[in-house]
Amino acid sequence: MTTEHFDAVDVIRAKRDGLTLSGPQIDWVVDAYTRGVVTDYQMSALAMAIFLNGMSRVEVAHWTGAMIASGERLDFSGLSRPTADKHSTGGVGDKITLPLAPLVATFGVAVPQLSGRGLGHTGGTLDKLESIPGWRAALSNDETVAQLEDVGAVICAAGSGLAPADRKLYALRDVTATVESIPLIASSIMSKKIAEGTGALVLDVKVGSGAFMKSLPQARELARTMVDLGTDAGVRTVALLTDMSVPLGLTAGNALEVTESVEVLAGGGPADVVELTVALAVEMLAGAGRPLGEDEVRAALADGRAMDTWRRMIAAQGGDPDAKLAAAKESETVLAGEDGVLTRLDAYAVGVAAWRLGAGRARKEDPVQAAAGVRLHAKPGDRVTAGQPLLTLHTDTPERFARARQALEGAWEVAPEGAAGAGAAAGPGKLILDRIA
Amino acid sequence: MTTEHFDAVDVIRAKRDGLTLSGPQIDWVVDAYTRGVVTDYQMSALAMAIFLNGMSRVEVAHWTGAMIASGERLDFSGLSRPTADKHSTGGVGDKITLPLAPLVATFGVAVPQLSGRGLGHTGGTLDKLESIPGWRAALSNDETVAQLEDVGAVICAAGSGLAPADRKLYALRDVTATVESIPLIASSIMSKKIAEGTGALVLDVKVGSGAFMKSLPQARELARTMVDLGTDAGVRTVALLTDMSVPLGLTAGNALEVTESVEVLAGGGPADVVELTVALAVEMLAGAGRPLGEDEVRAALADGRAMDTWRRMIAAQGGDPDAKLAAAKESETVLAGEDGVLTRLDAYAVGVAAWRLGAGRARKEDPVQAAAGVRLHAKPGDRVTAGQPLLTLHTDTPERFARARQALEGAWEVAPEGAAGAGAAAGPGKLILDRIA
Repeated sequence: MTTEHFDAVDVIRAKRDGLTLSGPQIDWVVDAYTRGVVTDYQMSALAMAIFLNGMSRVEVAHWTGAMIASGERLDFSGLSRPTADKHSTGGVGDKITLPLAPLVATFGVAVPQLSGRGLGHTGGTLDKLESIPGWRAALSNDETVAQLEDVGAVICAAGSGLAPADRKLYALRDVTATVESIPLIASSIMSKKIAEGTGALVLDVKVGSGAFMKSLPQARELARTMVDLGTDAGVRTVALLTDMSVPLGLTAGNALEVTESVEVLAGGGPADVVELTVALAVEMLAGAGRPLGEDEVRAALADGRAMDTWRRMIAAQGGDPDAKLAAAKESETVLAGEDGVLTRLDAYAVGVAAWRLGAGRARKEDPVQAAAGVRLHAKPGDRVTAGQPLLTLHTDTPERFARARQALEGAWEVAPEGAAGAGAAAGPGKLILDRIA
Repeated sequence: MTTEHFDAVDVIRAKRDGLTLSGPQIDWVVDAYTRGVVTDYQMSALAMAIFLNGMSRVEVAHWTGAMIASGERLDFSGLSRPTADKHSTGGVGDKITLPLAPLVATFGVAVPQLSGRGLGHTGGTLDKLESIPGWRAALSNDETVAQLEDVGAVICAAGSGLAPADRKLYALRDVTATVESIPLIASSIMSKKIAEGTGALVLDVKVGSGAFMKSLPQARELARTMVDLGTDAGVRTVALLTDMSVPLGLTAGNALEVTESVEVLAGGGPADVVELTVALAVEMLAGAGRPLGEDEVRAALADGRAMDTWRRMIAAQGGDPDAKLAAAKESETVLAGEDGVLTRLDAYAVGVAAWRLGAGRARKEDPVQAAAGVRLHAKPGDRVTAGQPLLTLHTDTPERFARARQALEGAWEVAPEGAAGAGAAAGPGKLILDRIA
């Protein structure tokens, strides 16, 4: 399709020397990489040069466009409903997609959640849903469209046809220390979301120890880059910056998070999970042209309408919404050592512990344990008593307990009630830190 | 030999983030790359991070040591003569090795010139000597040692056993735009020279349009880095910084340069080639513990002693020192367009023209033409008359003339005699710019 008008070494050299790559250079290098004309070792040198020298807004837009052009685009324009999608940059205990997709679909909006599996300390949405007996992640494009029309919500595996250049590049970045680059992260996420063909998109950009972006300025830059990319491509895009220094909810682990999500759909569940689910739903509905207030959205959780959609969504993909989920064969409880107020509970440490217990995978081909994970009995701001359970570790393979406990060393702090610090940190921290549109 | 104590991604990340790599990290990554445990795409990302973030003196020394440890080391300690070697960073018309090696050997010093082939616009010493019928570049280590003892001078191909990590890394850098990095250039050159086992080493670091280092500060930094590496490894090392804005001598091309070198060995030849040959010989002899003055060295060119050594050196490797060299099938002469003084003649342009005429290669596996190249009829500082020959292009394949002429567009300037600029630039520029020890 493209003739070789460019030379890979020239393109790498230009970025190495801090120059701006032209649109044709970017189109060529992404296409040639997808075709194997540009090699992995050339692309990794270019990725490192991009990591260290950055890309301009125009370059990132071209790069994203070139990745979209490497594959197919879905088309939801035949649906009778407007579409809205959500993407989270990944956090610990982040099960929000599970209650959110059926909640938004309840209001007549189609929610195509093409999702991935977990890698590292953050869980994967598909891994969580696969703890429901019978549920299957793989749908054809036709099945996806039919379910969107019928049920309104689909959570399924992203097909290999969307942005194959990104798939290839992401695998390379993972093994060459070039993951944490804002232009490369933004173009990776947005190429798939734009190719997917959603009309509206809400980004949940996580900030804090459990997230890829550790600081607010970094997260804001990533959000700004992605919102611009979406907007320029005709997708109504909004980002919320949300706290990920503490795990979301009280569970991290596949079946544990499904259970907690069902509690939210039943009108209960942890306050932070409900708050974020509702906030994201309000944004998605507005983006889809169906603006509703927070109270109207909360009502669909309280009165069972969202739960009905959930049950239909799970059943449509072969899952049994009434099935009993797997329980771990072994558990250990970690106790509080003193009386006081829990002032800190580190999201990253909890994520790594859940991962080591078997909830996540170290390599793409590893299996995960449905029942493994961590359950929290207290969150920052809660009063604790010496000897009370602080968290419970679950696994089917008890030899994993030791390394999970290692990950948790120093992961929390208890301050005497009334002490300096305990007061300030006593309430739960702010969850939604900023909104970028 | 090494167990996998390190992870490639951690090492790349550290250099990416501007940290200093430890000795064990460097030893591991170079060894693991040689063994194929660290992949090409990981090493190219690391090379780009080194290119952009640099290496400290201690890191470069470790990196060089790790490349030496990847292969064998030669041992010349059994020779009855002291050893001295010369390395040039490469220039246009740089045939100095040809007269220099026999000249220095004439004074009882062993000169093991393990050389390479040309790539790009700079010629290769082996390509030049191969224009002599019968001459062969490949010698065994035993043959090399025997010829050093007997004749005193050897110019031959570097065996594949020296610093194989460098061989692999150099090929990778060439296709990933990571060549022009001072730590990587210095460690590449010095790993081979130290592994070769020479007692003394003189570096000819070229500066100017025809060299890799375009500016004096860059060249000085490269020279300083290499002198430190050699000195720290126990090799008596000195560097001369020499001008490469103008070609050396009056020829660029394989057989053309052999002929010019023989003129120098016969006591004649262009003044700049003689000057540099003698200056480098004085440094090599001093490094080898046989200090001599410039006049004593020049005497060996004038009285035929150096020529005798040359003839024995060529004959020892199967070459016929009396053979008639190939002449090009076609030639074209470029004429001066006006009267005046030649004030500029660009080395890079002449190098590219010679390359395009067939003297050099674009890929490692390409053949070269023995007779192709450029002969200069004037050098900067010379008076020229409109219509007089300025340079002659030689090739066996006349379709190459057009692209060679393109390379030469704007490559020289003639100023009216007495004009501003013509006076200042009238004499030849200074050849030896600095000495670093």
